[in-house]
Amino acid sequence: MTTVDGPIDLTVPQPALLFDLDGTLVDSVYQHVIAWQEALSECGIALSVWRIHRRIGMSGGLFLQALQRETGTVLDDATLSRLTDLHAEFYLRRAAGVVPLPGARELIATLHDRAVPFAIATSGARRTAMTAIGLLGIPEGVPIVTRDLVERAKPDPHLFLAAAHLLQIEPRHCFVVGDSIWDLLAAQRAGALGVGLLSGGYGREELEAAGAYRVYNDPADMLSHLEEVGVRPRR
Amino acid sequence: MTTVDGPIDLTVPQPALLFDLDGTLVDSVYQHVIAWQEALSECGIALSVWRIHRRIGMSGGLFLQALQRETGTVLDDATLSRLTDLHAEFYLRRAAGVVPLPGARELIATLHDRAVPFAIATSGARRTAMTAIGLLGIPEGVPIVTRDLVERAKPDPHLFLAAAHLLQIEPRHCFVVGDSIWDLLAAQRAGALGVGLLSGGYGREELEAAGAYRVYNDPADMLSHLEEVGVRPRR
Repeated sequence: MTTVDGPIDLTVPQPALLFDLDGTLVDSVYQHVIAWQEALSECGIALSVWRIHRRIGMSGGLFLQALQRETGTVLDDATLSRLTDLHAEFYLRRAAGVVPLPGARELIATLHDRAVPFAIATSGARRTAMTAIGLLGIPEGVPIVTRDLVERAKPDPHLFLAAAHLLQIEPRHCFVVGDSIWDLLAAQRAGALGVGLLSGGYGREELEAAGAYRVYNDPADMLSHLEEVGVRPRR
Repeated sequence: MTTVDGPIDLTVPQPALLFDLDGTLVDSVYQHVIAWQEALSECGIALSVWRIHRRIGMSGGLFLQALQRETGTVLDDATLSRLTDLHAEFYLRRAAGVVPLPGARELIATLHDRAVPFAIATSGARRTAMTAIGLLGIPEGVPIVTRDLVERAKPDPHLFLAAAHLLQIEPRHCFVVGDSIWDLLAAQRAGALGVGLLSGGYGREELEAAGAYRVYNDPADMLSHLEEVGVRPRR
Protein backbone atom coordinates (compact mmCIF):
# COMPACT_ATOMS: atom_id res chain seq x y z
CA MET A 1 0.00 0.00 0.00
CA THR A 2 1.16 3.50 -0.84
CA THR A 3 -0.20 6.58 0.83
CA VAL A 4 0.57 10.15 0.00
CA ASP A 5 0.74 13.02 2.37
CA GLY A 6 -0.51 15.89 0.32
CA PRO A 7 -2.23 16.83 -2.92
CA ILE A 8 -0.74 15.40 -6.12
CA ASP A 9 0.61 18.15 -8.28
CA LEU A 10 -0.35 17.66 -11.93
CA THR A 11 0.27 20.14 -14.69
CA VAL A 12 -2.85 20.05 -16.86
CA PRO A 13 -3.41 23.32 -18.65
CA GLN A 14 -6.80 24.91 -19.14
CA PRO A 15 -8.17 23.70 -22.48
CA ALA A 16 -7.81 25.88 -25.55
CA LEU A 17 -10.48 26.10 -28.26
CA LEU A 18 -9.73 25.89 -31.98
CA PHE A 19 -12.69 27.13 -34.00
CA ASP A 20 -13.70 26.42 -37.55
CA LEU A 21 -15.28 29.46 -39.21
CA ASP A 22 -18.03 28.77 -41.80
CA GLY A 23 -21.09 27.14 -40.21
CA THR A 24 -19.40 27.29 -36.80
CA LEU A 25 -19.08 31.02 -36.06
CA VAL A 26 -20.73 32.57 -39.14
CA ASP A 27 -23.90 31.49 -40.95
CA SER A 28 -22.26 31.15 -44.36
CA VAL A 29 -22.48 27.47 -45.35
CA TYR A 30 -25.54 27.82 -47.58
CA GLN A 31 -24.00 30.83 -49.36
CA HIS A 32 -20.89 28.73 -50.03
CA VAL A 33 -23.08 25.86 -51.29
CA ILE A 34 -24.97 28.09 -53.73
CA ALA A 35 -21.74 29.80 -54.86
CA TRP A 36 -20.20 26.39 -55.68
CA GLN A 37 -23.33 25.35 -57.54
CA GLU A 38 -23.23 28.54 -59.61
CA ALA A 39 -19.52 28.10 -60.33
CA LEU A 40 -20.05 24.48 -61.44
CA SER A 41 -23.03 25.44 -63.54
CA GLU A 42 -20.98 28.21 -65.21
CA CYS A 43 -18.47 25.50 -66.20
CA GLY A 44 -21.24 23.21 -67.48
CA ILE A 45 -20.95 20.71 -64.59
CA ALA A 46 -24.13 19.32 -63.00
CA LEU A 47 -23.86 18.13 -59.38
CA SER A 48 -26.72 17.73 -56.89
CA VAL A 49 -26.70 20.48 -54.28
CA TRP A 50 -26.69 18.09 -51.28
CA ARG A 51 -23.43 16.58 -52.54
CA ILE A 52 -21.87 20.06 -52.55
CA HIS A 53 -23.18 20.71 -49.01
CA ARG A 54 -21.58 17.52 -47.71
CA ARG A 55 -18.15 18.71 -48.99
CA ILE A 56 -18.16 22.23 -47.56
CA GLY A 57 -15.34 22.69 -45.07
CA MET A 58 -13.01 20.18 -46.66
CA SER A 59 -9.92 21.19 -48.61
CA GLY A 60 -10.81 22.73 -51.98
CA GLY A 61 -8.38 20.37 -53.69
CA LEU A 62 -10.05 17.30 -52.14
CA PHE A 63 -13.48 18.75 -52.97
CA LEU A 64 -12.53 19.03 -56.62
CA GLN A 65 -11.16 15.46 -56.52
CA ALA A 66 -14.50 14.18 -55.12
CA LEU A 67 -16.31 16.25 -57.72
CA GLN A 68 -14.46 14.53 -60.55
CA ARG A 69 -15.35 11.11 -59.17
CA GLU A 70 -18.99 11.98 -58.56
CA THR A 71 -19.53 13.55 -61.97
CA GLY A 72 -17.38 10.99 -63.79
CA THR A 73 -15.36 13.72 -65.50
CA VAL A 74 -11.70 14.67 -65.56
CA LEU A 75 -11.16 18.40 -65.29
CA ASP A 76 -8.02 20.10 -66.58
CA ASP A 77 -6.00 22.48 -64.42
CA ALA A 78 -7.42 25.56 -66.12
CA THR A 79 -11.00 24.49 -65.29
CA LEU A 80 -10.09 23.59 -61.70
CA SER A 81 -8.51 26.98 -61.19
CA ARG A 82 -11.46 28.74 -62.88
CA LEU A 83 -13.90 26.91 -60.56
CA THR A 84 -11.98 28.10 -57.51
CA ASP A 85 -11.99 31.69 -58.76
CA LEU A 86 -15.68 31.61 -59.72
CA HIS A 87 -16.62 30.19 -56.31
CA ALA A 88 -14.79 33.03 -54.56
CA GLU A 89 -16.38 35.60 -56.87
CA PHE A 90 -19.94 34.26 -56.40
CA TYR A 91 -19.45 33.85 -52.64
CA LEU A 92 -18.19 37.41 -52.18
CA ARG A 93 -21.21 38.64 -54.14
CA ARG A 94 -23.40 37.07 -51.41
CA ALA A 95 -21.15 37.93 -48.47
CA ALA A 96 -23.31 40.91 -47.49
CA GLY A 97 -26.02 38.41 -46.43
CA VAL A 98 -23.68 36.49 -44.11
CA VAL A 99 -24.20 37.14 -40.39
CA PRO A 100 -22.60 35.77 -37.21
CA LEU A 101 -24.36 32.68 -35.84
CA PRO A 102 -26.39 33.26 -32.66
CA GLY A 103 -24.05 33.54 -29.69
CA ALA A 104 -20.83 33.64 -31.75
CA ARG A 105 -19.79 37.16 -30.75
CA GLU A 106 -20.80 36.54 -27.13
CA LEU A 107 -18.88 33.24 -27.02
CA ILE A 108 -15.73 34.94 -28.30
CA ALA A 109 -16.12 37.83 -25.85
CA THR A 110 -16.67 35.38 -22.97
CA LEU A 111 -13.59 33.33 -23.80
CA HIS A 112 -11.52 36.49 -24.05
CA ASP A 113 -12.94 37.74 -20.74
CA ARG A 114 -12.06 34.46 -19.02
CA ALA A 115 -8.57 34.41 -20.56
CA VAL A 116 -9.26 31.11 -22.35
CA PRO A 117 -6.84 30.73 -25.26
CA PHE A 118 -8.52 30.25 -28.63
CA ALA A 119 -7.81 30.47 -32.35
CA ILE A 120 -9.61 30.21 -35.69
CA ALA A 121 -8.60 27.64 -38.33
CA THR A 122 -10.50 27.53 -41.62
CA SER A 123 -10.20 25.60 -44.89
CA GLY A 124 -11.31 28.85 -46.55
CA ALA A 125 -8.95 31.10 -48.42
CA ARG A 126 -7.93 34.38 -46.84
CA ARG A 127 -9.89 36.43 -49.40
CA THR A 128 -13.22 34.76 -48.54
CA ALA A 129 -12.53 34.22 -44.81
CA MET A 130 -11.63 37.77 -43.84
CA THR A 131 -15.07 39.26 -44.59
CA ALA A 132 -16.63 36.69 -42.23
CA ILE A 133 -13.95 37.16 -39.57
CA GLY A 134 -14.63 40.89 -39.58
CA LEU A 135 -18.14 40.24 -38.24
CA LEU A 136 -17.01 38.51 -35.06
CA GLY A 137 -15.24 41.16 -32.97
CA ILE A 138 -12.12 39.05 -32.56
CA PRO A 139 -9.65 40.56 -30.08
CA GLU A 140 -6.06 41.50 -30.96
CA GLY A 141 -3.65 38.58 -30.84
CA VAL A 142 -6.05 35.70 -31.63
CA PRO A 143 -4.34 33.46 -34.21
CA ILE A 144 -6.23 33.08 -37.49
CA VAL A 145 -5.04 30.25 -39.74
CA THR A 146 -6.41 30.20 -43.29
CA ARG A 147 -5.92 27.70 -46.10
CA ASP A 148 -3.11 29.72 -47.64
CA LEU A 149 -0.84 29.26 -44.60
CA VAL A 150 -0.55 25.47 -44.47
CA GLU A 151 0.26 22.65 -46.85
CA ARG A 152 -3.01 20.73 -46.46
CA ALA A 153 -6.52 21.58 -45.28
CA LYS A 154 -9.18 19.45 -43.51
CA PRO A 155 -9.60 16.51 -43.00
CA ASP A 156 -5.79 16.71 -42.75
CA PRO A 157 -4.76 18.04 -39.33
CA HIS A 158 -2.44 20.85 -40.51
CA LEU A 159 -4.81 23.78 -39.87
CA PHE A 160 -5.55 22.76 -36.28
CA LEU A 161 -1.92 21.78 -35.60
CA ALA A 162 -0.83 25.21 -36.82
CA ALA A 163 -3.43 26.94 -34.62
CA ALA A 164 -2.32 24.96 -31.54
CA HIS A 165 1.31 25.74 -32.38
CA LEU A 166 0.58 29.48 -32.54
CA LEU A 167 -1.18 29.25 -29.16
CA GLN A 168 1.79 27.24 -27.82
CA ILE A 169 -0.59 24.62 -26.42
CA GLU A 170 -0.34 20.91 -27.15
CA PRO A 171 -3.18 19.66 -29.41
CA ARG A 172 -4.27 17.11 -26.78
CA HIS A 173 -5.23 20.05 -24.55
CA CYS A 174 -7.35 21.59 -27.32
CA PHE A 175 -10.99 21.22 -28.31
CA VAL A 176 -11.68 21.63 -32.01
CA VAL A 177 -15.13 23.21 -32.52
CA GLY A 178 -16.66 22.64 -35.94
CA ASP A 179 -19.88 22.01 -37.87
CA SER A 180 -18.65 19.46 -40.40
CA ILE A 181 -17.37 15.91 -40.25
CA TRP A 182 -14.14 17.22 -41.87
CA ASP A 183 -13.45 19.31 -38.76
CA LEU A 184 -14.02 16.32 -36.50
CA LEU A 185 -11.89 13.95 -38.58
CA ALA A 186 -9.10 16.57 -38.66
CA ALA A 187 -9.46 16.94 -34.87
CA GLN A 188 -8.90 13.21 -34.44
CA ARG A 189 -5.84 13.32 -36.70
CA ALA A 190 -4.49 16.29 -34.73
CA GLY A 191 -4.96 14.40 -31.47
CA ALA A 192 -7.47 16.96 -30.19
CA LEU A 193 -11.02 16.42 -28.94
CA GLY A 194 -13.84 17.53 -31.22
CA VAL A 195 -17.04 19.44 -30.44
CA GLY A 196 -19.75 19.46 -33.13
CA LEU A 197 -22.24 22.24 -33.88
CA LEU A 198 -25.44 21.61 -35.84
CA SER A 199 -25.37 25.11 -37.31
CA GLY A 200 -23.74 24.02 -40.57
CA GLY A 201 -26.61 21.67 -41.43
CA TYR A 202 -25.12 18.25 -40.66
CA GLY A 203 -27.13 15.86 -38.49
CA ARG A 204 -26.17 15.16 -34.86
CA GLU A 205 -25.53 11.47 -35.54
CA GLU A 206 -23.09 12.19 -38.37
CA LEU A 207 -21.07 14.47 -36.12
CA GLU A 208 -21.08 11.93 -33.29
CA ALA A 209 -19.99 9.17 -35.68
CA ALA A 210 -17.11 11.39 -36.83
CA GLY A 211 -15.91 11.64 -33.24
CA ALA A 212 -17.70 14.58 -31.59
CA TYR A 213 -17.17 14.56 -27.81
CA ARG A 214 -20.28 16.78 -27.47
CA VAL A 215 -22.74 18.27 -30.00
CA TYR A 216 -24.46 21.66 -29.55
CA ASN A 217 -26.98 23.52 -31.71
CA ASP A 218 -24.84 26.59 -32.30
CA PRO A 219 -22.39 28.92 -30.49
CA ALA A 220 -25.17 30.21 -28.19
CA ASP A 221 -25.96 26.66 -27.05
CA MET A 222 -22.26 25.91 -26.55
CA LEU A 223 -21.82 29.13 -24.56
CA SER A 224 -24.49 28.01 -22.11
CA HIS A 225 -22.73 24.64 -21.64
CA LEU A 226 -19.10 25.80 -21.42
CA GLU A 227 -18.53 23.82 -18.23
CA GLU A 228 -18.90 20.61 -20.28
CA VAL A 229 -15.59 21.34 -21.98
CA GLY A 230 -13.98 22.43 -18.73
CA VAL A 231 -14.14 26.20 -19.20
CA ARG A 232 -14.68 27.70 -15.76
CA PRO A 233 -16.33 30.93 -14.69
CA ARG A 234 -13.96 33.80 -14.10
CA ARG A 235 -12.43 33.67 -10.64
CA MET B 1 -50.31 -31.41 -38.01
CA THR B 2 -51.98 -29.70 -40.92
CA THR B 3 -50.86 -30.18 -44.48
CA VAL B 4 -52.11 -28.37 -47.52
CA ASP B 5 -52.42 -29.73 -50.97
CA GLY B 6 -51.73 -26.73 -53.13
CA PRO B 7 -50.34 -23.22 -53.10
CA ILE B 8 -51.91 -20.80 -50.62
CA ASP B 9 -53.72 -18.06 -52.42
CA LEU B 10 -53.01 -14.69 -50.86
CA THR B 11 -54.08 -11.37 -52.26
CA VAL B 12 -51.12 -9.05 -51.74
CA PRO B 13 -51.05 -6.32 -54.32
CA GLN B 14 -47.88 -5.02 -55.94
CA PRO B 15 -46.61 -2.09 -53.85
CA ALA B 16 -47.41 1.45 -54.91
CA LEU B 17 -45.01 4.36 -54.47
CA LEU B 18 -46.00 7.75 -53.05
CA PHE B 19 -43.33 10.34 -53.82
CA ASP B 20 -42.53 13.58 -52.09
CA LEU B 21 -41.39 16.25 -54.59
CA ASP B 22 -38.79 18.76 -53.32
CA GLY B 23 -35.46 17.07 -52.52
CA THR B 24 -36.91 13.71 -53.60
CA LEU B 25 -37.55 14.12 -57.33
CA VAL B 26 -36.31 17.67 -57.97
CA ASP B 27 -33.19 19.40 -56.63
CA SER B 28 -35.03 22.35 -55.11
CA VAL B 29 -34.50 22.19 -51.34
CA TYR B 30 -31.68 24.73 -51.19
CA GLN B 31 -33.63 27.17 -53.37
CA HIS B 32 -36.56 26.84 -50.93
CA VAL B 33 -34.19 27.39 -48.00
CA ILE B 34 -32.72 30.57 -49.49
CA ALA B 35 -36.20 31.83 -50.51
CA TRP B 36 -37.42 31.41 -46.90
CA GLN B 37 -34.34 33.16 -45.58
CA GLU B 38 -34.94 36.09 -47.95
CA ALA B 39 -38.62 36.26 -47.02
CA LEU B 40 -37.81 36.25 -43.29
CA SER B 41 -35.11 38.86 -43.75
CA GLU B 42 -37.56 41.06 -45.71
CA CYS B 43 -39.85 40.91 -42.64
CA GLY B 44 -36.95 41.72 -40.27
CA ILE B 45 -36.76 38.19 -38.80
CA ALA B 46 -33.35 36.57 -38.23
CA LEU B 47 -33.23 32.76 -38.20
CA SER B 48 -30.16 30.58 -38.82
CA VAL B 49 -30.26 28.93 -42.22
CA TRP B 50 -29.80 25.38 -40.91
CA ARG B 51 -32.97 25.77 -38.84
CA ILE B 52 -34.88 26.67 -42.00
CA HIS B 53 -33.37 23.67 -43.84
CA ARG B 54 -34.52 21.29 -41.10
CA ARG B 55 -38.15 22.51 -41.56
CA ILE B 56 -38.40 22.25 -45.35
CA GLY B 57 -41.08 19.73 -46.35
CA MET B 58 -43.26 20.23 -43.31
CA SER B 59 -46.56 22.06 -43.41
CA GLY B 60 -46.08 25.82 -43.89
CA GLY B 61 -48.36 26.47 -40.92
CA LEU B 62 -46.28 24.25 -38.63
CA PHE B 63 -43.10 25.82 -40.02
CA LEU B 64 -44.34 29.27 -39.06
CA GLN B 65 -45.30 27.94 -35.59
CA ALA B 66 -41.77 26.57 -35.09
CA LEU B 67 -40.38 29.85 -36.37
CA GLN B 68 -42.25 31.82 -33.73
CA ARG B 69 -40.93 29.56 -30.97
CA GLU B 70 -37.34 29.61 -32.26
CA THR B 71 -37.23 33.38 -32.73
CA GLY B 72 -39.23 34.09 -29.57
CA THR B 73 -41.63 36.35 -31.49
CA VAL B 74 -45.36 36.33 -32.08
CA LEU B 75 -46.28 37.14 -35.67
CA ASP B 76 -49.66 38.55 -36.64
CA ASP B 77 -51.74 37.00 -39.41
CA ALA B 78 -50.78 39.71 -41.90
CA THR B 79 -47.06 38.97 -41.41
CA LEU B 80 -47.61 35.20 -41.62
CA SER B 81 -49.49 35.60 -44.87
CA ARG B 82 -46.87 38.04 -46.22
CA LEU B 83 -44.09 35.53 -45.39
CA THR B 84 -45.90 32.80 -47.33
CA ASP B 85 -46.34 35.08 -50.35
CA LEU B 86 -42.75 36.35 -50.24
CA HIS B 87 -41.41 32.80 -50.03
CA ALA B 88 -43.40 31.80 -53.14
CA GLU B 89 -42.24 34.94 -54.97
CA PHE B 90 -38.55 34.45 -54.11
CA TYR B 91 -38.70 30.73 -54.86
CA LEU B 92 -40.30 31.25 -58.27
CA ARG B 93 -37.56 33.79 -59.05
CA ARG B 94 -35.02 30.96 -58.59
CA ALA B 95 -37.13 28.19 -60.14
CA ALA B 96 -35.24 28.38 -63.44
CA GLY B 97 -32.22 26.92 -61.62
CA VAL B 98 -34.16 23.89 -60.35
CA VAL B 99 -33.43 20.61 -62.16
CA PRO B 100 -34.65 17.02 -61.74
CA LEU B 101 -32.48 14.96 -59.38
CA PRO B 102 -30.29 12.34 -61.09
CA GLY B 103 -32.43 9.37 -62.11
CA ALA B 104 -35.79 11.02 -61.29
CA ARG B 105 -37.10 11.05 -64.86
CA GLU B 106 -35.75 7.53 -65.48
CA LEU B 107 -37.33 6.23 -62.25
CA ILE B 108 -40.71 7.63 -63.23
CA ALA B 109 -40.45 6.24 -66.76
CA THR B 110 -39.43 2.82 -65.39
CA LEU B 111 -42.36 2.66 -62.95
CA HIS B 112 -44.75 3.65 -65.74
CA ASP B 113 -43.24 1.05 -68.06
CA ARG B 114 -43.64 -1.68 -65.42
CA ALA B 115 -47.21 -0.59 -64.61
CA VAL B 116 -46.29 0.16 -60.98
CA PRO B 117 -48.87 2.55 -59.51
CA PHE B 118 -47.40 5.78 -58.13
CA ALA B 119 -48.42 9.29 -57.12
CA ILE B 120 -46.84 12.55 -55.96
CA ALA B 121 -47.77 14.16 -52.64
CA THR B 122 -46.13 17.44 -51.65
CA SER B 123 -46.47 19.92 -48.78
CA GLY B 124 -45.82 22.60 -51.40
CA ALA B 125 -48.54 24.81 -52.79
CA ARG B 126 -49.76 24.20 -56.32
CA ARG B 127 -48.22 27.45 -57.61
CA THR B 128 -44.69 26.48 -56.55
CA ALA B 129 -45.04 22.72 -57.14
CA MET B 130 -46.24 22.79 -60.74
CA THR B 131 -43.04 24.29 -62.18
CA ALA B 132 -41.06 21.44 -60.61
CA ILE B 133 -43.56 18.78 -61.66
CA GLY B 134 -43.28 20.00 -65.24
CA LEU B 135 -39.61 18.90 -65.31
CA LEU B 136 -40.33 15.25 -64.58
CA GLY B 137 -42.19 13.89 -67.61
CA ILE B 138 -45.04 12.54 -65.52
CA PRO B 139 -47.47 10.39 -67.55
CA GLU B 140 -51.19 11.17 -67.87
CA GLY B 141 -53.27 9.91 -64.97
CA VAL B 142 -50.66 10.02 -62.19
CA PRO B 143 -52.29 11.59 -59.10
CA ILE B 144 -50.62 14.78 -57.86
CA VAL B 145 -51.68 15.93 -54.40
CA THR B 146 -50.58 19.43 -53.36
CA ARG B 147 -51.01 21.26 -50.06
CA ASP B 148 -54.13 23.07 -51.28
CA LEU B 149 -56.10 19.81 -51.61
CA VAL B 150 -55.97 18.51 -48.03
CA GLU B 151 -56.65 19.81 -44.56
CA ARG B 152 -53.19 19.20 -43.11
CA ALA B 153 -49.71 18.69 -44.55
CA LYS B 154 -46.73 16.64 -43.29
CA PRO B 155 -45.96 15.32 -40.71
CA ASP B 156 -49.74 14.74 -40.67
CA PRO B 157 -50.66 11.81 -42.92
CA HIS B 158 -53.32 13.52 -45.05
CA LEU B 159 -51.23 14.06 -48.21
CA PHE B 160 -50.15 10.44 -48.41
CA LEU B 161 -53.58 9.11 -47.43
CA ALA B 162 -55.12 11.20 -50.21
CA ALA B 163 -52.57 9.91 -52.74
CA ALA B 164 -53.22 6.29 -51.74
CA HIS B 165 -56.95 6.94 -51.94
CA LEU B 166 -56.64 8.31 -55.48
CA LEU B 167 -54.61 5.22 -56.47
CA GLN B 168 -57.25 3.02 -54.76
CA ILE B 169 -54.52 1.15 -52.90
CA GLU B 170 -54.42 0.69 -49.14
CA PRO B 171 -51.66 2.73 -47.46
CA ARG B 172 -50.11 -0.42 -45.96
CA HIS B 173 -49.29 -1.55 -49.50
CA CYS B 174 -47.57 1.77 -50.26
CA PHE B 175 -43.99 2.97 -49.88
CA VAL B 176 -43.61 6.67 -49.15
CA VAL B 177 -40.39 7.98 -50.76
CA GLY B 178 -39.08 11.21 -49.25
CA ASP B 179 -35.96 13.16 -48.30
CA SER B 180 -37.11 14.66 -45.00
CA ILE B 181 -38.00 13.31 -41.59
CA TRP B 182 -41.46 14.91 -42.07
CA ASP B 183 -42.12 12.53 -44.98
CA LEU B 184 -41.09 9.55 -42.91
CA LEU B 185 -43.11 10.57 -39.84
CA ALA B 186 -46.14 11.15 -42.08
CA ALA B 187 -45.55 7.71 -43.65
CA GLN B 188 -45.69 6.10 -40.21
CA ARG B 189 -48.89 7.97 -39.38
CA ALA B 190 -50.40 6.87 -42.71
CA GLY B 191 -49.49 3.26 -41.97
CA ALA B 192 -47.16 3.07 -44.98
CA LEU B 193 -43.49 2.10 -45.14
CA GLY B 194 -40.97 4.89 -45.69
CA VAL B 195 -37.95 5.06 -47.98
CA GLY B 196 -35.46 7.88 -47.38
CA LEU B 197 -33.34 9.71 -49.96
CA LEU B 198 -30.24 11.69 -48.98
CA SER B 199 -30.79 14.16 -51.84
CA GLY B 200 -32.53 16.74 -49.64
CA GLY B 201 -29.51 17.13 -47.37
CA TYR B 202 -30.57 15.20 -44.26
CA GLY B 203 -28.17 12.62 -42.85
CA ARG B 204 -28.78 8.89 -43.23
CA GLU B 205 -29.09 8.32 -39.48
CA GLU B 206 -31.78 10.99 -39.09
CA LEU B 207 -33.86 9.35 -41.80
CA GLU B 208 -33.38 5.89 -40.28
CA ALA B 209 -34.36 7.20 -36.85
CA ALA B 210 -37.54 8.67 -38.37
CA GLY B 211 -38.47 5.21 -39.63
CA ALA B 212 -36.87 4.74 -43.07
CA TYR B 213 -37.10 1.10 -44.20
CA ARG B 214 -34.24 1.78 -46.65
CA VAL B 215 -32.14 4.87 -47.45
CA TYR B 216 -30.76 5.66 -50.93
CA ASN B 217 -28.62 8.53 -52.20
CA ASP B 218 -31.11 9.82 -54.77
CA PRO B 219 -33.65 8.56 -57.34
CA ALA B 220 -30.86 7.07 -59.50
CA ASP B 221 -29.62 4.98 -56.55
CA MET B 222 -33.17 3.90 -55.72
CA LEU B 223 -33.81 2.95 -59.37
CA SER B 224 -30.85 0.56 -59.29
CA HIS B 225 -32.21 -1.09 -56.11
CA LEU B 226 -35.91 -1.32 -56.99
CA GLU B 227 -36.03 -5.01 -56.07
CA GLU B 228 -35.48 -4.01 -52.42
CA VAL B 229 -38.97 -2.51 -52.34
CA GLY B 230 -40.45 -5.42 -54.25
CA VAL B 231 -40.72 -3.81 -57.69
CA ARG B 232 -40.10 -6.53 -60.24
CA PRO B 233 -38.74 -6.38 -63.78
CA ARG B 234 -41.34 -6.30 -66.49
CA ARG B 235 -42.63 -9.75 -67.32
